[in-house]
Amino acid sequence: MKFNILRDHLLAGLNDVMKAVSSKTTIPILTGIKIDVTNEGMTLTGSDADITIQTFIPVEENGEQIINITQTGSIVLQARMFNEIVRKLPTNEVEIEITNGTATIIRSGKSEFHLIGSDATEYPQLPELAADRQFTIPTDLLKSIIRETVFAVATSESRPVLTGVNWKVDGDELICVATDSHRLARRKVNLENLPTDVTSVVIPGKSLNELNKILEDTNNPVQIVLTSQHVLFKTDDVLFFSRLLEGNYPDTSRLIPEEFKTMITINGKSLLQAIDRASLLAREDRNNVVRFETLENQTVEISSNSPEIGKVEEQIQVESLEGETLKISFSAKYMMEALKAIDGQDVVIEFTGAMRPFILRSVADDAILQLILPVRTY
Amino acid sequence: MKFNILRDHLLAGLNDVMKAVSSKTTIPILTGIKIDVTNEGMTLTGSDADITIQTFIPVEENGEQIINITQTGSIVLQARMFNEIVRKLPTNEVEIEITNGTATIIRSGKSEFHLIGSDATEYPQLPELAADRQFTIPTDLLKSIIRETVFAVATSESRPVLTGVNWKVDGDELICVATDSHRLARRKVNLENLPTDVTSVVIPGKSLNELNKILEDTNNPVQIVLTSQHVLFKTDDVLFFSRLLEGNYPDTSRLIPEEFKTMITINGKSLLQAIDRASLLAREDRNNVVRFETLENQTVEISSNSPEIGKVEEQIQVESLEGETLKISFSAKYMMEALKAIDGQDVVIEFTGAMRPFILRSVADDAILQLILPVRTY
Repeated sequence: MKFNILRDHLLAGLNDVMKAVSSKTTIPILTGIKIDVTNEGMTLTGSDADITIQTFIPVEENGEQIINITQTGSIVLQARMFNEIVRKLPTNEVEIEITNGTATIIRSGKSEFHLIGSDATEYPQLPELAADRQFTIPTDLLKSIIRETVFAVATSESRPVLTGVNWKVDGDELICVATDSHRLARRKVNLENLPTDVTSVVIPGKSLNELNKILEDTNNPVQIVLTSQHVLFKTDDVLFFSRLLEGNYPDTSRLIPEEFKTMITINGKSLLQAIDRASLLAREDRNNVVRFETLENQTVEISSNSPEIGKVEEQIQVESLEGETLKISFSAKYMMEALKAIDGQDVVIEFTGAMRPFILRSVADDAILQLILPVRTY
Repeated sequence: MKFNILRDHLLAGLNDVMKAVSSKTTIPILTGIKIDVTNEGMTLTGSDADITIQTFIPVEENGEQIINITQTGSIVLQARMFNEIVRKLPTNEVEIEITNGTATIIRSGKSEFHLIGSDATEYPQLPELAADRQFTIPTDLLKSIIRETVFAVATSESRPVLTGVNWKVDGDELICVATDSHRLARRKVNLENLPTDVTSVVIPGKSLNELNKILEDTNNPVQIVLTSQHVLFKTDDVLFFSRLLEGNYPDTSRLIPEEFKTMITINGKSLLQAIDRASLLAREDRNNVVRFETLENQTVEISSNSPEIGKVEEQIQVESLEGETLKISFSAKYMMEALKAIDGQDVVIEFTGAMRPFILRSVADDAILQLILPVRTY
């Protein structure tokens, strides 16, 4: 293997695949980045066994020569070291050459790095995914779906399947649900060409968070392939593979109440900020619980107190307030995350009593639903 | 105590004094911020016992009414909580009122916080410093002096006096020296009205780092008062007190060699970047040692190797190279920090052999001197 490449392109590719590389891996070869050079260009692969990211740098792009190949080949180089070396090279011209077995030289300007690589054949193979079973989502919509659901996954491993987001196909509708059993986030979206063979998968929350970091805010389509064990997200430059979580995802539809006793329409941003302030004192006792009470005159009061520090009270005017009066307590953190997912619009909150789960949705549409279980304090 | 204040001014003041407040303090009252309101304005004080920062917000500034005082008074409020509350208040109008003993109410918009404060008389008194013994340094020069010396203080507490920077007055010259016994940084500066009674103090490195964060990049004068136990830095808005370190600072002048066998003039930035690259591999073995060797044709070579990872070599053209040939090894970290202190200019490096300390200075002037002890490897 011997080739020259422009450093900024190599760095951009490394930046993507490095997101999959973990220093905590127990598989030594996965501390490396695999480099494959063919006559078409260079493929970089990074993986932590759960997530695998692959990026391709073509020989030529938009008429610009990016790579000049003298000899094709493959090698695995220690990821963190290779990335740091490339970042600090003195010029934009980089030459990479395997001289003997896995001995690799990186040259740039008057710098010469000699690295001991690993045999590329030892690097794990990627799963083979049939490209005919794919559907597409615009990148910005996919990013929204992730942002609106993934925060609600369980962080504890006591029920591993709850650390992922359930993607379920129902006709032309993709239903994405996450829950940690104290709150639930659901996003529905209508899409074409949804798969009919694999109709319910659980994608690890960690994978979706990493994917979200890599995806740019465009409306270019992301191609998605679902199999029973893997999901592949494919953009122009990047292939993102994730292992799926095993186990049956619970049926959450019956958790969502259908009748309500108190219904409030309120500005989401005002409520978010008031709860943020109340949580300053709520946090001190570590339970992070705030109280919410309906008052006269289309007003609600948010309050919390900490016996040692003090208390806080705040009244907010609501857009509308229908049904029974209510005193309820809930986690400030859950409420703030739910409101952030609905994002600044007027929100509708529907309650069925102080000890029953309540739901939040945008006043504009039903696509996003957030459910929160209250905390008993009154 | 009862007054109204504009939130952005309060926040700016808090931002300064919070830098002195430590969550690790063993003195409970120092987890608080002291607020003193007089008819002239509001004084905020924060302290960790070693550093005390005080800032004053006047009732009126540039014709703008900042504070509206109904009743003067003093209170201590829990620092982190008070700061977060002020940051999150809904409007720029803040009312603070002591209602009963130390019970304090903070109002803004429709938010009302009730905090339990502490008695201001329990807060430690500031040292009394005579204002007639002060000298001044332009703020940007003071920041340079700190930057050029403080990195070289000892981080270990085995000789506590070395964790500070020695400021010594010699006639019209202030000589600032820091050393951790492996390297030394010295900055000399000519100033007027230097004190004649207190002529050598050791200022904790931590205090100088915090001071540097607070000082803005202007050429406004900073007034400095030295006593045998404290130093005070005084700007228009802020008083910064630091306790001094006790003990005699060693006489470092005899450590600095006066005769040299090899003398090199080299571009500081090129050398810094080459050493940064070489240190990538040097770091792996945790000793962080790079090799430096004079070659023919006005060239030096920087290299390092790590048996498991590989090696790196790089040649740099020097401006001039006089005297004996040389092979020497040193800490990449010390060299990089010394070069950063000299800051991008051509530097002169003077060596007295592979096992003797060597010095770096700017080609332009002698004000900054950096000394490094080599490491035995050849």
